[in-house]
Amino acid sequence: MEKEVISDSVIRRLPRYYRYLSELEYRGIERTSSAVLSEKLGLTASQIRQDLNCFGGFGHQGYGYNVAGLKKQLAKILGLDKCNPLIIVGAGHLGGAIAEGISFSSYGFYLVGIFDISPEICGTVLGGLTVQSMSGLPEFCNTIKPKTAVLCIPKESAQAVAEQLVDLGICGFWNFSHCDLDVDRSVIQVENVHLGDSLMTLSYKLHKDE
Amino acid sequence: MEKEVISDSVIRRLPRYYRYLSELEYRGIERTSSAVLSEKLGLTASQIRQDLNCFGGFGHQGYGYNVAGLKKQLAKILGLDKCNPLIIVGAGHLGGAIAEGISFSSYGFYLVGIFDISPEICGTVLGGLTVQSMSGLPEFCNTIKPKTAVLCIPKESAQAVAEQLVDLGICGFWNFSHCDLDVDRSVIQVENVHLGDSLMTLSYKLHKDE
Repeated sequence: MEKEVISDSVIRRLPRYYRYLSELEYRGIERTSSAVLSEKLGLTASQIRQDLNCFGGFGHQGYGYNVAGLKKQLAKILGLDKCNPLIIVGAGHLGGAIAEGISFSSYGFYLVGIFDISPEICGTVLGGLTVQSMSGLPEFCNTIKPKTAVLCIPKESAQAVAEQLVDLGICGFWNFSHCDLDVDRSVIQVENVHLGDSLMTLSYKLHKDE
Repeated sequence: MEKEVISDSVIRRLPRYYRYLSELEYRGIERTSSAVLSEKLGLTASQIRQDLNCFGGFGHQGYGYNVAGLKKQLAKILGLDKCNPLIIVGAGHLGGAIAEGISFSSYGFYLVGIFDISPEICGTVLGGLTVQSMSGLPEFCNTIKPKTAVLCIPKESAQAVAEQLVDLGICGFWNFSHCDLDVDRSVIQVENVHLGDSLMTLSYKLHKDE
């Protein structure tokens, strides 16, 4: 209930906390504080305490945060302890890089299928799975019931494919297709990755003093 | 001078404006307004006017914005009219996907070299360029003088390679290496792409109502 009113910017900071806590845990550090986190993450200590308080607050006055404990709580909040079946649609260079390079199980997902329209790509193996033809998608979804799809297809076909996937039971998209999907956001979750926006931001930073 | 005080969140909205204006231009639409932009982008009209006013303001009372004109101004602000020589370091799946899939010239960059340590990858062609050995990096940088590097290498080696690249004249990083680079941020620009953070955000959205 409480979680529904949490702002997008708070949510987007949680993965950063989680990532840094993982690093601390890896280095054998058992406790930390909002002051230490703030220095590393470039946020104020008060903002960090406020963010974590949105979810109940996990610190103790005079002690700070137990690294392993807080990490575990954040993992639970982020749903990383789940095993959400996921498919990749589009097995070109980017789809292949994602299949091979993303450790889905670390993020609460489980890669169950990869699909492409190209006959040359179908039958190849990526991320340990054989790429299947898009024509097999309906039967696959009816049987395996994946809930999340990674879209790595050209933007021209993204909307039509997204609609087909929604009809087949997909309710979450990790969208690399450079377009804003027109789907019912009240029931379908969309996380866009606009790599071009990131590169434009770098371009701005490089030229801003000219 | 003015631009130096512009907040990171304003800067991060500029690529979205640019992207949407490109879409409008593609659809033959000649003028728009902060009200139309606000509906599409999920921001308030007043915020959009404020953002654009940071750079001088380009609208006219009662007319709104000329699409092509505003797009051109934003391209200039974002440095997209530049031709910044860029190299990719790490030509595995992700480096390859970036070499093949990113239209660098649309973002003010120009891909001049791709490097990898693996003898199996060196000599292959990606994005129209032959992948070169890391051992050739110093001579290449001294001759061609690239200013920006895309880091697609494991996080374990990212810091050492980044330091080498800074010594070789690189002043901007597009960093896919899942680690926060420790470089002098007053002179070196870093734009991190944390794909894992994005996937965790999706995981949160999918499970938040449970």
